[in-house]
Amino acid sequence: MGVDVVPTMEAVDILVVEDNDSERGTIVDTLKASIGGVTVLGVPSGVQALNFLLARGEWSGRAGAEPPKLILLDLELPGSDAFSVLGTIRALENDDALMVVPIVIFTDSYNAADVAECYRCGANSYIIKPLSFFTFKTVVDAVGRYWVTHNRAN
Amino acid sequence: MGVDVVPTMEAVDILVVEDNDSERGTIVDTLKASIGGVTVLGVPSGVQALNFLLARGEWSGRAGAEPPKLILLDLELPGSDAFSVLGTIRALENDDALMVVPIVIFTDSYNAADVAECYRCGANSYIIKPLSFFTFKTVVDAVGRYWVTHNRAN
Repeated sequence: MGVDVVPTMEAVDILVVEDNDSERGTIVDTLKASIGGVTVLGVPSGVQALNFLLARGEWSGRAGAEPPKLILLDLELPGSDAFSVLGTIRALENDDALMVVPIVIFTDSYNAADVAECYRCGANSYIIKPLSFFTFKTVVDAVGRYWVTHNRAN
Repeated sequence: MGVDVVPTMEAVDILVVEDNDSERGTIVDTLKASIGGVTVLGVPSGVQALNFLLARGEWSGRAGAEPPKLILLDLELPGSDAFSVLGTIRALENDDALMVVPIVIFTDSYNAADVAECYRCGANSYIIKPLSFFTFKTVVDAVGRYWVTHNRAN
């Protein structure tokens, strides 16, 4: 469950929060390959995502760094990690640039209650993980391109 | 400023709210051409958008209809129309399916204060209108495809 290392203060365009090592690797590699010049960081837990985003612990050197353009967040993290990330980020002060960073849920769950709860907690978008490897990569590519290329987050 | 007419109870996948007749026509036509089988309705004001969404006035026959998968909302509507739409929809009860419908702002404004305010008011995404006609249509196509094809709204 090691974290892919980036230089501490390097700008990160996309933060991928996914506890499954294999899926995290596929997502990070697909995004890097599909969007020119994009910087992607994968972390395996909501706690590490929050440490990165809030410049805590091993990420304390990032204080004042530009927030990512996209957080891709697995819903099925251990415990209530995904909702902790959503809740913590959306509860920040209005003038905190992180408060408005797009958060896209990436999940196996078709459950309508999960969908509604994620939006209510401040998710911008909710994407089902495709079962086939090829479609999985196609969807990750489309999601990354939309939020990095078209969406404006600040 | 006539409204494109659809049979009252027909499902509408995308609601386009845009007061510029020419741009509204281009957006509606582009979405219809790019996404197979999609139903698109264009309205010229926030008041008409809310009448449609809330099944009021001439749209009262739509009570109980499925909400759209996407609302594409011009920010520069007359008055404070865009924020009225955002505020009214996001203030609905938690169990109202409309409350979680994706709302994408489509605007000329690069103003960081506008961007932040839209997200704070519950916009899911913020897209700048490209100046060139070709790129305008390319971006409308990408936005429509993302929200109708990939995003799950219920």
